[in-house]
Amino acid sequence: MPAYRSAEQYLGALAHRAALPAGFCAATASLTFRPAEKPGSFPMNLSLILLDEPTPSFAACFTRNRFAGAPVLIGRKRLGEARLRGVLINNKVANVGAASGVQDARAVLSELGGLLDSPERELLPASTGVIGWRLPVAEMRAALPGLAAGLQRRSLLPVARAIMTTDSWPKLRRARVGQGSILGVAKGAGMIEPNLATMLVFLLTDLDVPRALLREELARAAAASFNRISVDGDQSTSDMVVAFSSRRKPACPRAEFRRGLLEVCRGLAEDIVRNGEGVGHVLRVRVRGPNQALALGLAKAVVNSPLVKSAVFGNDPNVGRLLSSMGDYLGAVPGGSAVDFRRLRVALGGTLLYEQGAFRLDPGKERLLARYLSSCAYDPARKGFPAHERCVEIEVDCGGRGTAAAEVFGADLSYEYVRENADYRS
Amino acid sequence: MPAYRSAEQYLGALAHRAALPAGFCAATASLTFRPAEKPGSFPMNLSLILLDEPTPSFAACFTRNRFAGAPVLIGRKRLGEARLRGVLINNKVANVGAASGVQDARAVLSELGGLLDSPERELLPASTGVIGWRLPVAEMRAALPGLAAGLQRRSLLPVARAIMTTDSWPKLRRARVGQGSILGVAKGAGMIEPNLATMLVFLLTDLDVPRALLREELARAAAASFNRISVDGDQSTSDMVVAFSSRRKPACPRAEFRRGLLEVCRGLAEDIVRNGEGVGHVLRVRVRGPNQALALGLAKAVVNSPLVKSAVFGNDPNVGRLLSSMGDYLGAVPGGSAVDFRRLRVALGGTLLYEQGAFRLDPGKERLLARYLSSCAYDPARKGFPAHERCVEIEVDCGGRGTAAAEVFGADLSYEYVRENADYRS
Repeated sequence: MPAYRSAEQYLGALAHRAALPAGFCAATASLTFRPAEKPGSFPMNLSLILLDEPTPSFAACFTRNRFAGAPVLIGRKRLGEARLRGVLINNKVANVGAASGVQDARAVLSELGGLLDSPERELLPASTGVIGWRLPVAEMRAALPGLAAGLQRRSLLPVARAIMTTDSWPKLRRARVGQGSILGVAKGAGMIEPNLATMLVFLLTDLDVPRALLREELARAAAASFNRISVDGDQSTSDMVVAFSSRRKPACPRAEFRRGLLEVCRGLAEDIVRNGEGVGHVLRVRVRGPNQALALGLAKAVVNSPLVKSAVFGNDPNVGRLLSSMGDYLGAVPGGSAVDFRRLRVALGGTLLYEQGAFRLDPGKERLLARYLSSCAYDPARKGFPAHERCVEIEVDCGGRGTAAAEVFGADLSYEYVRENADYRS
Repeated sequence: MPAYRSAEQYLGALAHRAALPAGFCAATASLTFRPAEKPGSFPMNLSLILLDEPTPSFAACFTRNRFAGAPVLIGRKRLGEARLRGVLINNKVANVGAASGVQDARAVLSELGGLLDSPERELLPASTGVIGWRLPVAEMRAALPGLAAGLQRRSLLPVARAIMTTDSWPKLRRARVGQGSILGVAKGAGMIEPNLATMLVFLLTDLDVPRALLREELARAAAASFNRISVDGDQSTSDMVVAFSSRRKPACPRAEFRRGLLEVCRGLAEDIVRNGEGVGHVLRVRVRGPNQALALGLAKAVVNSPLVKSAVFGNDPNVGRLLSSMGDYLGAVPGGSAVDFRRLRVALGGTLLYEQGAFRLDPGKERLLARYLSSCAYDPARKGFPAHERCVEIEVDCGGRGTAAAEVFGADLSYEYVRENADYRS
């Protein structure tokens, strides 16, 4: 990620990369509603991403959470449709756990379909926000004519803003591929864990990509990006990654498409971590281990340990907790004995700190590591700007003959995280 | 736990229950040392629990963490000894990850054995504190004569104080059983997760309990107490539960011993959660599910979710997160589909909030639940006193024919937790 010198520079770059690929248009609108569940009136944004023509080339990955929201339940079924034309996104209400959730979402889509001259089944719903509240169907329906009237072909940036909840910044990534492009937009800033928790991602391409290929490549790219980030270990109820191809530009070699899609997905995944609720430090953990499952498990164990996370927040190089979190994981999984701590090497910011069964520390090294952690911290003087260009780099090599490697992004645990999550709904 | 009206009253009750069972004595001493790993001088406490005669009746459970400390490595071997006479405990240095860890611990025990006229192999080491530092062997050896000279038969309370690290309060529980008693002491205040993380527990009984029976009953009691609490989901490197029988009092019926041991272990386990670093609320989650594994997994998923924990800290009845944490768990484990959310019932503080596939909420209920959470919070006006007599009670019934039940204790996620863990070592 380039180091932008100011918020204006970052937003300028975003505007530049936000141009919609051929065959897509977008719109946003806002409304207010009074939930039956809680006193007061709340704002909600609606966003619409629409193709000029329904496309057979669409793909989606959904959260594994079994308490899935109505949009996920509907979306899973829509995967079997012949064609889709677009997605309607709302923030503020996740539409999870309401008895009428599926009905409510379909009522809104039905109204929208009428305005757009499309059958309801060609539209996808996507929601993020409070669990348990009902969608304000009447208010949403009333806002749809204004939404449809606002469709434009210029920029996805308004959508990137409108889908935000506790995100600090809009998130957009673009890759030029062959004669076309891939544009991705994401919402997500907390509750982020592997398998797409509280995250909405929409990927638009004008390249001609057949449905089967798009589905394979999306699954592959998501596994190597959104499923490799972790902010707090919870998976959410509502999350999805959706891709559409408008097929307006000639097909490109598959390897090129794969590279471009991965670049966009990785970029968005990192942006989501950097934008996490109250993130003070971003952690990147790289593990080389005897097999992929153990390497990935170890990396996640480090990145999800509250004790590691809070030590990093305090710029305290409490390296014992790194080792302890790995030992904890290895003691709990089958096959954990494949890792021998006597052969393990661990480095923090390039400084070797554990080798041959013992810590390699001295007071000078401790000071160096503390300075290193401070240098990676979010700088409040630059608040109002997407910081965290630097990561706390943690490298683990399990030794032995194994060569499987895994990389996971995560975040520290800060006061800010607790504050933001202690009363998210107020 | 009775509601004590003042700290004095609590400590008075502790002093009363701290009388050592027949055949045991105890001592404490303190020293200062200068670790090679970090500048400055640090205090350390030594504690000794000793039997008049070596006993064949001893038992222990150790952490499953594969990055285990030297005391755990030694302790596992000591389980095969014919007899043990006691345990030497130090705080401040966990003796984990130092190349000479086992040697260092044995050098100290060897010196102690000389003073007590016992072979080193009859003594157990136990350590808690910073991972990665070496034991200050010379300073510890120098302090041993004073320690041995201080042995007394009156009270375990000095040991309960000396083994504390970030604990706010000493923890002692006693049960009268038959003609004897069971006295337990615990250290532990953070990093507490099922399987004994950063927790030292010593259980002393004068009842005549054969070794095999003691080992079976200890494993059983630990599984139903220390393995049912959770503060932050990390398991530590150093933790152990050890039991000794001095065999001075006649044997009692096994069922009575079981009841007494469980009472002591449950009491200590709850004390540890109430004493957790920065605990604002204690949570008790009870789940009735289709089988034991799923019931326990669901209870732990709720208690370990950072989003649930931070919502409870903020007295925010964000009940969506309860359901989401369960859905997250069920989506990730084999057999999770055995739970049907349409049959699930969830209550908070006795108030039903989810049933028949939908939330049962309204603004009045939300206010009631927020007041309920506030009423369960740690009261800072009573700081300096072991509060948290109240628990936030969460009840989940998966419906269906299953009757397996599980109960887990845990804690919320507070600013204080982050603060204490951000620089534990300074």
